[in-house]
Amino acid sequence: MTKASVCTIGDEILIGQIIDTNSARISSALEAAGIKVSHKVSIGDERKTIIDTLRKELEDNDIVITTGGLGPTADDITKPALAELTGSEKYVLNEGQAAMVREILHSRGLDVLDINKAQALVPDTCEVIVNRFGTAPIMVFRLSEKDFGHKATLYSMPGVPHETENMLPDVIEDIRRHNELSPIYHRNVMVYGLAESALAMELASWEAALPKDMHLAYLPNTLTGVRLRLSVYGGVEASDKERVEAEIGRLKAILGDKIYSLDDDTLQHAVGKLFRERGLSLCAAESCTGGEIAHLLTTVPGASEYFLGSVTSYAIPVKEKVLGVPSETIQMNGVVSSEVASAMAQGVRKLMDADYAVSTTGLAGPGGDERNPEGTVWVGVASRKAVKTAIFRYHNDRIRNIERFAASALYFLLTFVNSEINN
Amino acid sequence: MTKASVCTIGDEILIGQIIDTNSARISSALEAAGIKVSHKVSIGDERKTIIDTLRKELEDNDIVITTGGLGPTADDITKPALAELTGSEKYVLNEGQAAMVREILHSRGLDVLDINKAQALVPDTCEVIVNRFGTAPIMVFRLSEKDFGHKATLYSMPGVPHETENMLPDVIEDIRRHNELSPIYHRNVMVYGLAESALAMELASWEAALPKDMHLAYLPNTLTGVRLRLSVYGGVEASDKERVEAEIGRLKAILGDKIYSLDDDTLQHAVGKLFRERGLSLCAAESCTGGEIAHLLTTVPGASEYFLGSVTSYAIPVKEKVLGVPSETIQMNGVVSSEVASAMAQGVRKLMDADYAVSTTGLAGPGGDERNPEGTVWVGVASRKAVKTAIFRYHNDRIRNIERFAASALYFLLTFVNSEINN
Repeated sequence: MTKASVCTIGDEILIGQIIDTNSARISSALEAAGIKVSHKVSIGDERKTIIDTLRKELEDNDIVITTGGLGPTADDITKPALAELTGSEKYVLNEGQAAMVREILHSRGLDVLDINKAQALVPDTCEVIVNRFGTAPIMVFRLSEKDFGHKATLYSMPGVPHETENMLPDVIEDIRRHNELSPIYHRNVMVYGLAESALAMELASWEAALPKDMHLAYLPNTLTGVRLRLSVYGGVEASDKERVEAEIGRLKAILGDKIYSLDDDTLQHAVGKLFRERGLSLCAAESCTGGEIAHLLTTVPGASEYFLGSVTSYAIPVKEKVLGVPSETIQMNGVVSSEVASAMAQGVRKLMDADYAVSTTGLAGPGGDERNPEGTVWVGVASRKAVKTAIFRYHNDRIRNIERFAASALYFLLTFVNSEINN
Repeated sequence: MTKASVCTIGDEILIGQIIDTNSARISSALEAAGIKVSHKVSIGDERKTIIDTLRKELEDNDIVITTGGLGPTADDITKPALAELTGSEKYVLNEGQAAMVREILHSRGLDVLDINKAQALVPDTCEVIVNRFGTAPIMVFRLSEKDFGHKATLYSMPGVPHETENMLPDVIEDIRRHNELSPIYHRNVMVYGLAESALAMELASWEAALPKDMHLAYLPNTLTGVRLRLSVYGGVEASDKERVEAEIGRLKAILGDKIYSLDDDTLQHAVGKLFRERGLSLCAAESCTGGEIAHLLTTVPGASEYFLGSVTSYAIPVKEKVLGVPSETIQMNGVVSSEVASAMAQGVRKLMDADYAVSTTGLAGPGGDERNPEGTVWVGVASRKAVKTAIFRYHNDRIRNIERFAASALYFLLTFVNSEINN
């Protein structure tokens, strides 16, 4: 199996100034392409360390991907280090990247400075994949057996996360063209409402009976629940795909509506698909989630097609005045109650004249009381003909509780809308 | 200088299933304590790899902190690997952690299973720092010169991010007690409204004139602007602190109200402090930021003291009906305009009867037009006596644009409130 290492370069990651999201993204793409990630390492902007570390990684792996250290300023010294490591004798101008640098800067109304031009200069030992999202090119060094004991390829990617994210498919495509990768077939099943350990118990006997060549991974996430990834490595035939589909059919029979998508979706994307397909409109009333539900929904491009808006009613007068929650309902039941969640959902639905509404009222913490401990949330959903509520309890800190509340609300909304459509 | 390495253990990080936030947090805390982080490495759940990697890291460093691989399931094998590495002959029950396991599980209404009890068993070669936020203890191995060429300490922390975050101060305190760390004096200056490169140019001559023993770091972040960290290492006397304060005085003279805090604050915490101190109330009307401003404000514990609520008015009818934006204002100026931002801020302020309101209307992308390219936002702020707007342009993807829009709005609000208070 092709082996890879991912190396982040830069003091800012090493000393924890910024969180490294690139290496997870790269590893995940490599893994999905059937390449084994053996090692990840993070080093500072120090020429000798870069050279020594990469030499070792190239000896141990078929593919090494570096990210970072390619900025225009003096402390970014990855490029000269790579030139030295690969025995480059001169820098050459890459015309494709030079044109891209001009285009990007002009579109931002900026002049091209010498410091920018220099970004299109690369060691003569590399090929270039033009970076369409930034000024630093992706350098590809194809290294021979005599230097590293085997053929190895080094990809140097920029450190800016959205550039890495957007250019990663080009790098994976280049890897595919130059390596004999085992074909691989993946399918994702998105599950909500069961913790990873509970889900593993639920699936134990099905999992034990899986064919030997099928691999199951559990990928849990606060905002999306558990992603189950079912993979077949090796010679993937039409019959293999059919076998995977048959297993997914079995999963559906076990998990029912705990499965909210058979694509690699988030809850907000699944909500978006459903509402767009059905031509429905949606709004929200948030207390303890404080805007997180609206925020999640509007991270999806095109959300304006179905999402009308929301009210964050943090203060009680806003619940009463804007959403029309009767003050007796609050006095009799308390703010954190099924009745208030229900009135909030109905109130915002009427206010915005939407087909559906979702609401939350709870305690994200710190703090709670006997009846409603920290981590308790009531979620309400309303349509033009019905309203429904549910209670959820979590045991995280404030920010994680808010995330789980919002995710639970989106999941509860999905099941509610689906049940109305199917009845 | 004391040297440290941070090592994350677990297939889920290695293959990119989850993003590693722990190692940045640990590195940052070490760096702030005056410890040099030389190396970060990520390895899978493989016994031999764990032992070999940690042996090498312990040879090269004074302190090694591992995170992860301590869960109760069979694939977590860090503990036996550490036992083997340190020559442990048996496991012993740590009473302190055992009591904590019982307390945590009971508070969640769960029974203590054997699998949980086993978490309080540790190799006899370690000391324990009781984990007050989870079931796996922090193991401290104090290793002798004869094994690793020098005295070295290995801290094994759990992989759950909020446990690592909350227990990190205890680990740093233990490091301080057992090592002769150079004292260090840090001060943070939070700056908004200048990109890192522009800020560096602005500060060039001041920075060049800084005393040799003072160190300046630029820590940029989409949501908080640039954190400037000014540090003095070595024998820190009262006179050193005075010298740092004098430099901060010079910084204030250069940057003026681009400095929004002299603590390690986020914009939403700075807003919270100001509104709480002054007994003021706040609300928001969001279009393109879609709930992100409300979400950021409500991540601050106690936000309900000053934040009344918000309206996400994604659809035009919601802007008109709920916020009272006149439809002629929208027709004459377009949705993305100073006039609409102004009307939204005034409308939500009246609706919620708040002292202040902030609003946004713009295009996060994908897509834009000639007049308002993707990445354009109009921000409005209103008080009981005035209203003000500003335009900002960014060049990121949708999610980053939303973050920058929200941060710019909070910063614009801060300067507006401060100017009203000071006039």
